[in-house]
Amino acid sequence: MPNHVKYQRGYFMPPEPCFDWAKKEYIEKAPKWVSVDLRDGNQALIIPMSLEQKLEYFKKLVEIGFKEIEIGFPAASETEFELARTLIENDMIPEDVTIQVLTQAREHIIKKTFDALEGCKTPVIIHVYNSTSLAQREQVFKRDKEQIKEIALTGAKLLKELTDEAGHDNYRFEYSPESFTGTEPEYALEVCNAVLDVWQPTPDRKAIINLPATVEMSLPHVFAQQVEYMSKNLKYRDAVELSLHCHNDRGTGVAETELGILAGADRVEGTLFGNGERTGNTDLITVAMNMFAHGVDPQLNFANMPELVELYERVTNMKVEPRRPYAGQLVFAAFSGSHQDAIAKGLKWREEHDPEHWTTPYLPIDPTDVGRHYETDVIRINSQSGKGGIGYILEQNFGYVLPPKMREELSYASKDVSDHTHAELSPEEVNRIFHENYVNHEGRIELMDFHFTHAENNKAFKAFVTVKIDGDEQDVIGNGNGRLDSVCNAMEKLGLKAHIASYSEHAMTGGSDSSAMAYVGVEDPNGKIVWGAGEHHDIITASIKGLISALNRM
Amino acid sequence: MPNHVKYQRGYFMPPEPCFDWAKKEYIEKAPKWVSVDLRDGNQALIIPMSLEQKLEYFKKLVEIGFKEIEIGFPAASETEFELARTLIENDMIPEDVTIQVLTQAREHIIKKTFDALEGCKTPVIIHVYNSTSLAQREQVFKRDKEQIKEIALTGAKLLKELTDEAGHDNYRFEYSPESFTGTEPEYALEVCNAVLDVWQPTPDRKAIINLPATVEMSLPHVFAQQVEYMSKNLKYRDAVELSLHCHNDRGTGVAETELGILAGADRVEGTLFGNGERTGNTDLITVAMNMFAHGVDPQLNFANMPELVELYERVTNMKVEPRRPYAGQLVFAAFSGSHQDAIAKGLKWREEHDPEHWTTPYLPIDPTDVGRHYETDVIRINSQSGKGGIGYILEQNFGYVLPPKMREELSYASKDVSDHTHAELSPEEVNRIFHENYVNHEGRIELMDFHFTHAENNKAFKAFVTVKIDGDEQDVIGNGNGRLDSVCNAMEKLGLKAHIASYSEHAMTGGSDSSAMAYVGVEDPNGKIVWGAGEHHDIITASIKGLISALNRM
Repeated sequence: MPNHVKYQRGYFMPPEPCFDWAKKEYIEKAPKWVSVDLRDGNQALIIPMSLEQKLEYFKKLVEIGFKEIEIGFPAASETEFELARTLIENDMIPEDVTIQVLTQAREHIIKKTFDALEGCKTPVIIHVYNSTSLAQREQVFKRDKEQIKEIALTGAKLLKELTDEAGHDNYRFEYSPESFTGTEPEYALEVCNAVLDVWQPTPDRKAIINLPATVEMSLPHVFAQQVEYMSKNLKYRDAVELSLHCHNDRGTGVAETELGILAGADRVEGTLFGNGERTGNTDLITVAMNMFAHGVDPQLNFANMPELVELYERVTNMKVEPRRPYAGQLVFAAFSGSHQDAIAKGLKWREEHDPEHWTTPYLPIDPTDVGRHYETDVIRINSQSGKGGIGYILEQNFGYVLPPKMREELSYASKDVSDHTHAELSPEEVNRIFHENYVNHEGRIELMDFHFTHAENNKAFKAFVTVKIDGDEQDVIGNGNGRLDSVCNAMEKLGLKAHIASYSEHAMTGGSDSSAMAYVGVEDPNGKIVWGAGEHHDIITASIKGLISALNRM
Repeated sequence: MPNHVKYQRGYFMPPEPCFDWAKKEYIEKAPKWVSVDLRDGNQALIIPMSLEQKLEYFKKLVEIGFKEIEIGFPAASETEFELARTLIENDMIPEDVTIQVLTQAREHIIKKTFDALEGCKTPVIIHVYNSTSLAQREQVFKRDKEQIKEIALTGAKLLKELTDEAGHDNYRFEYSPESFTGTEPEYALEVCNAVLDVWQPTPDRKAIINLPATVEMSLPHVFAQQVEYMSKNLKYRDAVELSLHCHNDRGTGVAETELGILAGADRVEGTLFGNGERTGNTDLITVAMNMFAHGVDPQLNFANMPELVELYERVTNMKVEPRRPYAGQLVFAAFSGSHQDAIAKGLKWREEHDPEHWTTPYLPIDPTDVGRHYETDVIRINSQSGKGGIGYILEQNFGYVLPPKMREELSYASKDVSDHTHAELSPEEVNRIFHENYVNHEGRIELMDFHFTHAENNKAFKAFVTVKIDGDEQDVIGNGNGRLDSVCNAMEKLGLKAHIASYSEHAMTGGSDSSAMAYVGVEDPNGKIVWGAGEHHDIITASIKGLISALNRM
């Protein structure tokens, strides 16, 4: 057994109870969204993006609606310097978009950062950080709390002085107590407040205090308490944007971010599809679409998710996994019979009632709201599927409305094929199974000719039918209350005894070559219902073909 | 912009405040784990598993430590019936393992389920369910609350009667108010308590009430409140195991499960790697390993994660994505310079201090605890990497301990190669770059021969050196305080003026053909440090080769 005793909880609880967030039920207003795809996301790729790929990604981020975009660490990397220069020199940054750059707070590095930003007319956020966690103080920097705070303060002062000196009025500052989740909250607060004392932010030129869950270390509600403590105790609070930057080491990055917003965060850093170091950053798509699904405007637009997935996979060489919320290939798929049945009924109910809100079972949102399709993405057929799904597939894709019991029988046939071929069935394959088994089904009996006479007064029909049975042509006459009934009675005279237990029909809509479908269930002498279907441009012929199909299958 | 106004929050708050869970900090004890891989996981696969694959998976689940395993819906599927029969007839179910089967509560289906379980000597859980959500009552079943409760009660009674009748003392019952997250909590409670009144569970034969987040609909802390409400108000509470079954539509399945455990759940259903309908079920590996990382025994063993990943990918045809916590290829990887530096220092600190607990920065757990490796899985080199990573790679893989400034220079060279080749660098490639650029570096100067004389009394050295410069052989004598110093002075006489600014050396351990490394930094006339390294079985020769390498690179 692995050695769990080697571990302890490495986070710290705030010194006072912080549970106000828990009383809030949902996120009522979108936070400021910050994409760190081009920095934190990019640096975690096996093959980082090229300049061209970054420019394409940047444009897409703007198109989605991001107003703050971290573009890299220009003083530390040629490529990132080049990206800043290209964006600025080609006027590629829209007026309402702020670029953000990471820097170390050392003079030559800050100056190189300023060089990278030379001539930028749009607002800029300069982001400085230092590690404050117990582990890093002890193991990496080998300094005590005062000394680590001094690193932050020296940097904050230098940044402010150099910025003031250069007259960069369009620059704002962001400070991250890096590895916040491994830092004592009181100490993180002390360092942040000291930095704010240096920067003296105002509501007109706010500073950003960013709390990185560099490594996720606690349950998400503990993180929320830490955030609430910071939010309540930060100085200059109305001049501070409180920001979150979560990772996903415990698989709860989205939850941490959401509860952190309830706890007072105004701003959220993250990436598309959760790209980023190790387990990734918070997936901002999921956080935003979670709000969307609650009826709140996320102020980001993911209406064409398949296109975004294509771009992301191409430039990052990563895959969007099939189960990633709102974006994966399988997230709207229902293979199981009961789910398919409920979805089919729910969608029908929706058509009939035209309700104000989306409430369809098993579909957290309408797939078409992210550019997906009912026809291909929802009901999918494998050996676990049932009648609801089969019926839905045939109706949506081909216009066939089978009676429920026939659907059930067809679903067993389809499951069987899927089970034996060990494969998913496409709608076309289901349609093929339906036709091969039921429609205009050939066998012992071949319909050659028929016509009816109809006595107006007693509403009775007389059928004159010519069939071949086992190749032997025979004429026969039958009487009945309806046309099909009279044919049925005619067939009985030929020794093909069957009682019509179910009959339904419909026109096929849409095609110019319109036709009709008839579904006939006959009860065989043992009381078992045997199904057949007829398809013909003439509905009478379709119904008789349906009957003959059933008899042939008996 | 997509139409967010089409959505509303589809969940219901409990009628009383339920916040006790929020005061708990972490999960102190493992819940009962239930794998639903072979049912909920399997039914969501494009190609469901074959019997052989299910048997292999079942064995692995047992090996990991699962004591309750849902094996399917035997009355609804031939394959699942067959699985039950195979497990039972071949005595494949260990004594302490309970299999669980899903069934509908209709007489012929229950009877077929009993047939599937015939002769089972180990305990069995029979799991019945019906949908209770507002949406399903209205859209799918078109029944009111009383009628839906009646479905549950009729089923519960029938199941109990048939079980008692057949004398199956080894059967226990589980009831799920399916789509619990879309159900009014008071109503879910009413239905569950009514079912419990029928079953009359006792502490010796507990009933299971399972709360499915069939579709995730709220923030995780809302789900926790719903669970706490149920836990506090369920009848026969000491005779009930309260169970959770979460999905991941909002990307917070793990968080819901964790907060739900704090809120009173005794038992958790889920799958490995979060397989399951749409966005998947709760990933039990993550929940268990999250406890492990907090020092709590999860009672599941994931010590060989790579083997488990291999099996999973093979039988499900799904991929474990590279960022999935604890299991993905990249979850321990550090590409960025600062992370690499901190990890390298943290691991060194760990060696020196041998601390009781794991606290290494950027590594939430020790990778070796899940069968991964420091050498290949942690520090990885791309164009974002830095000196800490390069140094670590060379030291861990090849035993070279470069001085910090030389590491920094090599890291720029490596980043450059990665940037231009647009590729990750393997340790071998980093080593190649190191050797090509620094070690026994050839150039204008070729060392032909040398020896020293040493005056004991004044500790001075005299070097007699023969070198070729541009192919022209020359003899020269130099004096110095040390051997290297005397060679350096000799070279100065040949017009190669350089001051030794840094020197370090070490033996290479491990190999039978042991050798020594020397790293020499010389200051050129402009004050720039130029580096060279010498490798030789004789440390004196290595140091002189290091010096010559540096001079050749000047």
